[in-house]
Parts: sequence; C-alpha cells; structure tokens
Amino acid sequence: MAGSLPVSPLAPTGGFPDLPEVAGVRFASVEAGVKYTGRTDVMLAELIPGTVIAGTFTRSQTRSAPVLDCEAKLGGDSETGAAILVNSGNSNAFTGIRGVEAVRAVTAEVARVLDIPETRVFTASTGVIGEPLPHERITTVVEDLRASLSVEGIAAAAKAIMTTDTYPKGTKRVVEIAGETVTITGIAKGSGMIAPDMGTMLVYIFTDAKVEFDALQKLVSTACEKTFNCITVDSDTSTSDTLIVAATGASGVQVDESEAFRLGLSEVMLDLALQVVRDGEGATKLVRVNVRSATTNEDAKRVAMSIANSPLVKTAIAGEDPNWGRVVMAVGKSGAVADRDRLTIKFGDTLVAENGMVAEGYVEAEAAAHMQQSEIDLTVDLGLGDGEVTVYTCDLTAQYVAINADYRS
Amino acid sequence: MAGSLPVSPLAPTGGFPDLPEVAGVRFASVEAGVKYTGRTDVMLAELIPGTVIAGTFTRSQTRSAPVLDCEAKLGGDSETGAAILVNSGNSNAFTGIRGVEAVRAVTAEVARVLDIPETRVFTASTGVIGEPLPHERITTVVEDLRASLSVEGIAAAAKAIMTTDTYPKGTKRVVEIAGETVTITGIAKGSGMIAPDMGTMLVYIFTDAKVEFDALQKLVSTACEKTFNCITVDSDTSTSDTLIVAATGASGVQVDESEAFRLGLSEVMLDLALQVVRDGEGATKLVRVNVRSATTNEDAKRVAMSIANSPLVKTAIAGEDPNWGRVVMAVGKSGAVADRDRLTIKFGDTLVAENGMVAEGYVEAEAAAHMQQSEIDLTVDLGLGDGEVTVYTCDLTAQYVAINADYRS
Repeated sequence: MAGSLPVSPLAPTGGFPDLPEVAGVRFASVEAGVKYTGRTDVMLAELIPGTVIAGTFTRSQTRSAPVLDCEAKLGGDSETGAAILVNSGNSNAFTGIRGVEAVRAVTAEVARVLDIPETRVFTASTGVIGEPLPHERITTVVEDLRASLSVEGIAAAAKAIMTTDTYPKGTKRVVEIAGETVTITGIAKGSGMIAPDMGTMLVYIFTDAKVEFDALQKLVSTACEKTFNCITVDSDTSTSDTLIVAATGASGVQVDESEAFRLGLSEVMLDLALQVVRDGEGATKLVRVNVRSATTNEDAKRVAMSIANSPLVKTAIAGEDPNWGRVVMAVGKSGAVADRDRLTIKFGDTLVAENGMVAEGYVEAEAAAHMQQSEIDLTVDLGLGDGEVTVYTCDLTAQYVAINADYRS
Repeated sequence: MAGSLPVSPLAPTGGFPDLPEVAGVRFASVEAGVKYTGRTDVMLAELIPGTVIAGTFTRSQTRSAPVLDCEAKLGGDSETGAAILVNSGNSNAFTGIRGVEAVRAVTAEVARVLDIPETRVFTASTGVIGEPLPHERITTVVEDLRASLSVEGIAAAAKAIMTTDTYPKGTKRVVEIAGETVTITGIAKGSGMIAPDMGTMLVYIFTDAKVEFDALQKLVSTACEKTFNCITVDSDTSTSDTLIVAATGASGVQVDESEAFRLGLSEVMLDLALQVVRDGEGATKLVRVNVRSATTNEDAKRVAMSIANSPLVKTAIAGEDPNWGRVVMAVGKSGAVADRDRLTIKFGDTLVAENGMVAEGYVEAEAAAHMQQSEIDLTVDLGLGDGEVTVYTCDLTAQYVAINADYRS
C-alpha cells in the first residue's frame, strides 16, 4: 500500500526542497478517494494564457488513454489558459474504450470549470493497471480544486501524485539570463520504471520563461535523452510515463536560444531523474554506469543499459561484491561492438581489469571498499571510439522481490 | 559453493535417467582439484574416427578462449578420432593471452595421449570468470582419464561438469529409421543463462547416427532456435555457452534427411533445455510463455522474451499473483508491433483480458489457482499475423538474489 514502505535509504537529506513560486502557475490537491483513503490523490495545476507546453511520453506500444490524449495535444494553440490534472491510485491503462471515455469526462469538466478549451487540458493517471477509472470521483472534485488553487501548492501536489514512492520529489533552478531571472521548478513521481502494478513515472516542470513550442520541445527531447532516458530501475517500461514542461512566459524573458536556460532545464531533469532512481524499489545503492570510448553514443548506451539492467550485476552490487566478471559478461551480451582485449574496467577509482584480464596489481580490498559506499561508480572503457554515456541505476535486492511478489495481495 | 544448494523443487523426479551406450563414445571423469575439492571436475569423452562434430556457441562479444577455439575447429576433417574435455570450477574466460595458452596446453596433452590431431580436441571450461586456469592440474590427469575410459561413464561425466547446478542433467531418445535403430544421448549443465560468477551452459549430445557435417550443423542450428535459444533464466548471457553434437556413425545409419532423427535430436535438445530452466537459480516455477498471432516469428520472440525477462512479471509469478497488467506492460515495452486493443491474454486456460481490457466474466480466483501450480502457462495472442513462439523461463525469487548477492563471498 502506498506510503507503508520505509523511506528509501537513498532519499535526499533535508526532505522536500523549498520551491519558489513560478509566475503563472497555481496548484491544488484534494482527497478524491480514487483508490487510496486518508491521503490526497488528485492534483490540479492551472496555467495562464500563453503557456507553452512540451513533453515526452512512454514509448510503450500499450500506452494508456491519458498518454495518447496528451501526445495529441502537444504543440497546439497556446493563447488560452491550460491545465494539468493528475490522479494517483488508478492508471487508466488497458481499460479499452472506457479509458478513453474517462479521459474525455475529466478533461471536459476541467475545461468547463476553468473556462479553457479541452485541447488545453493535460491529464495523467498512475496506479493499478486494468481497472476502470472511477472518473466521477474526479469530476466531482474539480470545483473544489479550483477553489483552493494557490501559487504555493507545489509541495502538496508532489505528494498527491505518489504511489509506491517513499518520498515526494521536487527540485528547482533559478537561471540568470542577461541580468534577468527565470525560475524552473519540477516535481516527479516514480519508484521503478514501472512501479509494481502501480505504473508510471510522472514529471511536471514549470518555468516562467518565454519560449516557442518548437524550441521548448527540442530542449525537452534532447535533455530527456541524457536524463530520464538514462535511468533504469528494473528495465520495465511503464504504460503511462509522462513528462510535461509548462513555460508560462510570465517572466517576459525569451529563452529559445539561451544556453543558461538549456543547462538549468537539463539540471532540473537530471535531479528529478536521480530522485526517481534513489527511490527505486528496494534500492540501497545509487549506481552510475559510465561507458567511454565506444564506437558510437548508441553503442555506449547499449553497453551501459546492458550492465545497468543485468540481474547478476545488480545483485552483486547489492552484495557489495566487486564482481567484475559479471560486468564483462554484460558488455559481451549487449550486442554493441566490443573487443574483449581492449576493455578497461574501473570500480570507483580502482582499475580492475585491462588487456582482457585482471589488472596488474589489482587489490580486491580496494574495489570492495568502494562497493560499501551508497553511491557506486562503474566505468567501462571500450577503447574503440568517442561514444560515451552515463546511465543511472540502483541495486537489485531481496526487498525488490518482496515488494513485487507480494504487492497486490 | 557448488553442491551446497538444495535440489531445485522443479528437478525431474526419479533422478538422473538410465542412459544407453552410444557406440563410438567412451567417457571418463576424475578429481583434478581445479578449484573444487571432494568431487570430480574434469570429464573426457573419446570419440572414434569418423565422428562428425557440430555445435553452437554463445553470441557474447566477450567469448572465452575455449569457445573461440571450438568455433574454429567445427567442420574440420573427421577421419581421425576426436575428444571433448571439460573442466568445472574455472571458466578460463577473460583471462587474456594466458587463456589461449591454457587451451593450447590442454588440447596438446589430450591429442598426445589419445594420438589424435589437436584440431580434433574440443575443450570447455566453466566456473569463475577472470582467474587464470591452472591448466597443469588438468594436463597431469589426462593419462588417468584415458586409463578409465568406459562406455558407461556418461552419468559420472554429467556430474563432473556441474557448477551451481543442483542436479545433473541428461536425456535420451532411441529413433527407428527404416527398421534400424539410432541412439541419441545428451548431458547438460547450467543453472542460469550464466550462473553466478560461474558462467556457462554446456551441452554435449552423442549419437551413433551417420551424418554429414553440413547436414548435422544445420539440424543443430535449427533445433537450437526453438530450444536453447528459447530459454532464459535471468536475461544474462554466458561468455562460455557451448553446445556440441558428436555423431560417431557407428550405427551405420545415414540420417541426413531423416525426419525421425531431426525430431529425436530436437526432443533431446528441448528436454535438456528445460532441465536447465528447471534448475534456474532460486526457481520455484517453470513458465511457458506462448506468443501467438504476432506479425512475424521474430516479433513473437521479442514479445515472449520481454515477458520472460521482465523482473515484474517474474516476481509476480513468484508471488503466485495473476498480474496480467505486468504482461501488458511487457508486451508494450518489447518493441514489437502490438495493438493494445487486439491483445488476448490467458493464464492457463483462463481468459484474462481481451479487446484492450479485462475479459467479461473474468474471475481472478480461476487464474490465481493456475498460478499456484509449479508449471505456469502464459499465452498472449497479438491478433495480428502468423508469428508464434514458445519461450521457457522460471520465476524470480528472493533466493535468486540471495544466491547472486552472496555467492562469491
């Protein structure tokens, strides 16, 4: 049950960060009783006219109705106001025609209450797959949501979208552009690429920057490649993953070409992505898999994901075992171009293997000491070209199995 | 430590089968102390002149020295005698130039003792990765091996090649071809596509059939696609997987075109493949993932492997939970062509989902009852074309994590 799990040992210290207001966005959250009781489970973000909305979504072939609806709405007319509504407890995924009807009912009610077009209402649902969404529980609270909209509601919103998350996730960056200030805040949920039965990683990022849709979408897609598309908890992909960036323009600062904004947005996305990994189910270690000198960036990612998703590598990390033989195995099975005899492997700063065999003077105790840290660095140099990537993952523990074997019952 | 694990609950009842002699093959096993103590760890199979040898090997880019050596020797002159020598305890993988030297030393000694060319000596090594193979412990026992060669030694050979296996694996088929009899026997080891740190699935099949190399290699490669290439324990691929089929020809029965032989060989391979899955690390369930009506056979396999390798599906099976939402998720992430609204999913004989949502009249108790069996059938019909496959896997339990997190220490 959501909230009953102990907080991840990798959770950021200091709790949820103090997030600044972003001009042009207001938030509200309520208890709608979609599935959970005794906690908020629906959040609404209201956005001023002119807000540009970009996003990326799951690549799953079995995407949920809300995902398909959001995808279709990106890039539309941004002159009117807009809204984002998210419920937890039910993912409205694999719900057939009833799923489409549920999305239509919710977006229509939000559009009516906020007096905006339905095409400007972006919804998401996260929770159990395959059960019809009781959408009337949501439509009946939209008026209440509107009544409690506040510029300070983002922390509460981050809590309302949690499912198996053990802590709410948020971050901020304040960017200086030619003497003016742009603010970026973001919230996320996710505790597995798909959490047990309770799918979905959801990410909402807000900024008062002024930016054209095409420019924003490109920034988001590019940054996503090195952030959210570089994390993995268990290799499983949600039917509902959604990332939305809403730029209200209220600062008046145009950022289409701004390197500082690009950097700030990327940092917000990476920060939230790592918070998701740190809340990976059963995780006790945050692992950076650095692959260098691959033939291409694509090959680097293939190798890194093969390592990061290998059950044998992940269980070795859980056991604090510098088991580099399993890293060699994962390189070999990745399908990427690799030459066994040119591989170099490091655990932390310790050179473990080179020239196709264990390194001269390798002392296992040094690598073993690194494995006892809560943050682990595995670096594989393929010795072939310029391709590189860093992928982020966590270990695979018996707790992961316990959570996922026993969750629904 | 090999042998210290309890026998898999899925092990075949009745123990190791009573295997008939195959004319033209003799076996011997000894304790060489490569790594283990108190058990046999080297086996030798001696094959008569005229024996045709085919095989398939791991596709890993980090294949071991013995694998590279065997690959190069397939299809060579078959007029002389031949030999297969296998050690357990050390995989001679990722051992650089010393690995190549070790293979050379062992093959040279076997060739000398048996008076056959080095090109007819096929070796394999299975065990820890990355430690130099103490090959002198093997070369010193080759004379002893020769002295104890026996036509009845196959059961002992099956034991000598075990690492983390919890039981020795063997099977047989006797095939009638135009009133004459051909015998096929086989042994295998493997307890994961790679066992923890102790890589490798090894399979040796012997027959007295008479067959040309090209015909045998084609039979083996084709049968492998539907047997050993359709099993997965943990998605991890060994650096040393080796399958060798030796046809001595001693029966005098030519089988190049024989459908009965093809079938018999396929059955032996499937039987051994399933014995490997049944000994999957921590396994409590044997799972058949049947994918039907995919656009192509390749797409069917992509979907089936995505399901069979999904940690969330495998943990749900361990928890006896008919969690079909995770099956939908795995179909969606597979990359294969799929239409959410045409999917049909069955657990055992129970129709769980169709038309993009839960099936009318679905009673979870029926599917839940199937999940309590030790053999589980998951069937996904994509409703698109003629592509189909059956893939075999096991569940993912806390015992898998325990074995792999703690093994080396």
